[in-house]
Amino acid sequence: MKPTVWHDLKLCTAGDPDDTISDAAIAVEDGRIVWLGTFADLPRDHADWHRESLGGAWVTPGLVDCHTHLVYGGQRADEFAQRLAGVSYEAIAQQGGGIVSTVRATRVADEDTLFRAAIERLEPLLAEGVTAIEIKSGYGLDLVNERKMLRVARLLGERYPVTVYTTFLGAHALPPEFAGRADDYIEEVCTRMLPALADEGLVDAVDVFCERIGFSLSQSEKVFNTAARLGLPVKMHAEQLSNSGGTALAARYGAISADHLEFLDEAGVRAMKAAGTVAVLLPGAYYFIRETQLPPVDLLRKHQVPIAISTDSNPGTSPVTSLLLVMNMGSTLFRLTVPEVLQGVTVHAAQALGRADRHGVLDVGREADFAVWSCASLAELVYWLGRPLCRMVVRGGKVAYTRG
Amino acid sequence: MKPTVWHDLKLCTAGDPDDTISDAAIAVEDGRIVWLGTFADLPRDHADWHRESLGGAWVTPGLVDCHTHLVYGGQRADEFAQRLAGVSYEAIAQQGGGIVSTVRATRVADEDTLFRAAIERLEPLLAEGVTAIEIKSGYGLDLVNERKMLRVARLLGERYPVTVYTTFLGAHALPPEFAGRADDYIEEVCTRMLPALADEGLVDAVDVFCERIGFSLSQSEKVFNTAARLGLPVKMHAEQLSNSGGTALAARYGAISADHLEFLDEAGVRAMKAAGTVAVLLPGAYYFIRETQLPPVDLLRKHQVPIAISTDSNPGTSPVTSLLLVMNMGSTLFRLTVPEVLQGVTVHAAQALGRADRHGVLDVGREADFAVWSCASLAELVYWLGRPLCRMVVRGGKVAYTRG
Ligand SMILES: [Zn+2]
Ligand SMILES: [Zn+2]
Repeated sequence: MKPTVWHDLKLCTAGDPDDTISDAAIAVEDGRIVWLGTFADLPRDHADWHRESLGGAWVTPGLVDCHTHLVYGGQRADEFAQRLAGVSYEAIAQQGGGIVSTVRATRVADEDTLFRAAIERLEPLLAEGVTAIEIKSGYGLDLVNERKMLRVARLLGERYPVTVYTTFLGAHALPPEFAGRADDYIEEVCTRMLPALADEGLVDAVDVFCERIGFSLSQSEKVFNTAARLGLPVKMHAEQLSNSGGTALAARYGAISADHLEFLDEAGVRAMKAAGTVAVLLPGAYYFIRETQLPPVDLLRKHQVPIAISTDSNPGTSPVTSLLLVMNMGSTLFRLTVPEVLQGVTVHAAQALGRADRHGVLDVGREADFAVWSCASLAELVYWLGRPLCRMVVRGGKVAYTRG
Repeated sequence: MKPTVWHDLKLCTAGDPDDTISDAAIAVEDGRIVWLGTFADLPRDHADWHRESLGGAWVTPGLVDCHTHLVYGGQRADEFAQRLAGVSYEAIAQQGGGIVSTVRATRVADEDTLFRAAIERLEPLLAEGVTAIEIKSGYGLDLVNERKMLRVARLLGERYPVTVYTTFLGAHALPPEFAGRADDYIEEVCTRMLPALADEGLVDAVDVFCERIGFSLSQSEKVFNTAARLGLPVKMHAEQLSNSGGTALAARYGAISADHLEFLDEAGVRAMKAAGTVAVLLPGAYYFIRETQLPPVDLLRKHQVPIAISTDSNPGTSPVTSLLLVMNMGSTLFRLTVPEVLQGVTVHAAQALGRADRHGVLDVGREADFAVWSCASLAELVYWLGRPLCRMVVRGGKVAYTRG
C-alpha cells in the first residue's frame, strides 16, 4: 500500500460524538496512522500522498465486540420453536436440549465444520465495522474439544480481517461425564486443560461462568488462581441471574471485565471501580431471555466504571450477529446514552479486552482500523434497527470490506 | 425468460412449517407457477425445461410487509439521542421535534429526495425476501404533500422488484395549520384530499390513527364513510396507547386490518372475527417505545383472528428496516409461535392487504414470487437476530436479488 491520505470525512476518534473533527483527514503509512486532524492542517510531508475521498462520511474506530461465543456446532432454533409452542425447559432438557445439545454438536464437529459455521456469524459483524472480536471456548468442556474451539477462533483471525482475542471458558458448564462432580471438573480445568492450552498459545484470557447454575465462588477462585499463575488476565460471567458476589471476587483478581451484571449491587460496583474492571453489558441476552432485572447503569455511572456492550453471540441466550442491533438495545432497553453506547463498542470495549492500547481509538502511531458510515449523524448508528449503515471498513490501512 | 424448473429445494407454500415438501420443484412459465410438488412427480410436460438447482435450500413465499411508513423526509436520531440524555418530550416538542419535525422535513423534500431516502430503507427489506409492501402517506398532511408521498411510493414499486400497496393516512396527525381545528382538517381530508388522490389512482386503501393523541371515533368514521363512498378498503391504527373502541368501529366498516392493538379487549376481538379483519401486530414499535402492555394474543387465538406482523417502519416509533428482526420480536416479545410468525409475514400479511389472492402463498396460477433461505430449519428465520439468511429472491419468475 502506498502512503495514503483519507480525506473528506468527519472523524470521531474515540467514540465520543461531542469530540469530533468535521473536515478531517487521516494519513496512513505501512498500515499505521502517521497523522490525523483537520484537513486544512495536513502537513506538507503528506501533501503529495495518494488521496482517497470518503465523500463526507463519518469515520469511527473499528468496532470491538468484546464478549462472544461465536464458535460452536449446531444451533438451537428448533428448541426456540418448541419453547414458544409451550414445551417446558424440563422436557427440552430431558430430550437432550439446552447447552448440552450445543456441547454435543460442538464435540462431534471437526475444525472445518466449526470454522464454516462461525464465518456465517462473523461476516455480518465484519460488515458492521467490527475489526476486533473476543471469542470464548466453553462448548467443548474437555481438552481436545476446547482446543478445537480455540484453534478455530485463532484461524478466524488469520483468515479474516479481524483481530481475534481468545478466551478460555472451560468453566462454562459441567460436562455430562462429570455430572455431580463439579470440583473434579474444576480440578481437570486447572491442572490439565488450562495449562496445556495456555502453553500452546491458544489463550489470551480466562473466563468463568459464576452462577448458581454455573460454578461457585470457590470453584471460580481456583480457576482464577491458575490463570494468575500462568500470567493470564481474567474476566467473569457475573451476577446475570442472581447476586452471587462473583464480581467482587473477579475484582480481587484484577479482572479486566465483569460481564452481564443485571444483579450487581453497589458494593460490587465499588469493587470494580477500585480494580479498574470494565462492566460489559449484554442487552441481547437480556432481551432474548426476557430478563426484567436491569443492570445497575446509574450505579456504574455514579462510580465511573467504564461500560462496554457486546453481542454475547451464542446459540442459547443471544443468537445475535449484529453489534448495531445490540447498540440500539443498549439504549432502548438499558437507557444508555448515545455517547455511552459508542464508547461501549470502541474505547471501553477495547479496555474490556485489556487492549485499550491497540483498539477503540484512532490516533497517531496506532493501526489504521476504522469504519466508514453512511449516515448524517453518529446517533444514527444507535437509532436505526436493521439498517446496513457501514459503507466501508479499513483495517491496517487496507480496505477490508465495502458494502454492496 | 424460458420456462424453468426450480428444483432441489425444500418448499413451504404458505408459511406453515409443518406443511412442507422436502424434495420439491416449482415449474415457472411467463412469471407464473404452472406446477409445484415433489420433484419425483414432475409432469413430463416440464421434464425438458431449463433447470435451476437451489442446492437443497428452503423456499417460502416472498414475504409481505403489510404496515409501513417507509416514505418520509429526515430522520429522528438526534431526538432519540436527546431523549436518552434526559431531555423531556415537552422540551423536544417545544424545539419543533416529534412528528411535526418529520412533517416539516417531508414537506420541504422533493420527490427525488424522498425517493432516494426511501430506497435506503427499502433495499434492506428486499434483501430479506420482501416482495410486497404497504406504504402509507401521513407526513404530508395536505393535498400536495400527501400526493408527493404516494407518488414516491408508487415509483418505488415501478423501479424496484416489489409490489407496493399505497395507503392514504391523511388522518395521521393534525397539521400545524389546523391546530385546534381537527374537525376542519377531517373535513379537508374527506372532501378534498382523499377524493382527489383516489381519483388519481394513488390510493389502494385508507387508514386512520384513532387515538387520544390522534383522531376520535367520529372523525375516524367520517374518513371511513368517505372511503366507502369511493369504494376503498379501510384499516386502522387502533388501541395502541389506550382502548378507544376504534377496532369495533373499523370492523363495522369491514376493515381489512386493525393494527397495533395492545389495548384491544375481547369485544373488539369478537368484532374483528365477525368482520374478517386481520390483526396486524407491530412488535418493533412496542419495543422502541418500551410499551409494557402486550397485545391480547391469546384472545386473538381463541377467536381465530388471523395475525400478521410487520415492521411499522417509521422515524418516530419504529426506525426498523428488518422484517426478520421484527419476526424475532414477534416471538420473543409477544410469544407468537414460529408458525404464527411465518404465516404473519406471508398468508396473513397478504390478507391484511386484502390481497390474499395474490401474495403470501405459492400455488399453481400465482406469480412466482419466492424467497430462498440459507438455513437448516424454517425456525431459524425467527430465531436468529441480525443474520442475513436470505440467499435469493425470485419475483415474477426472475431473480430479483442474490446475496453477496
Ligand atoms: Zn457469554
Ligand atoms: Zn403505523
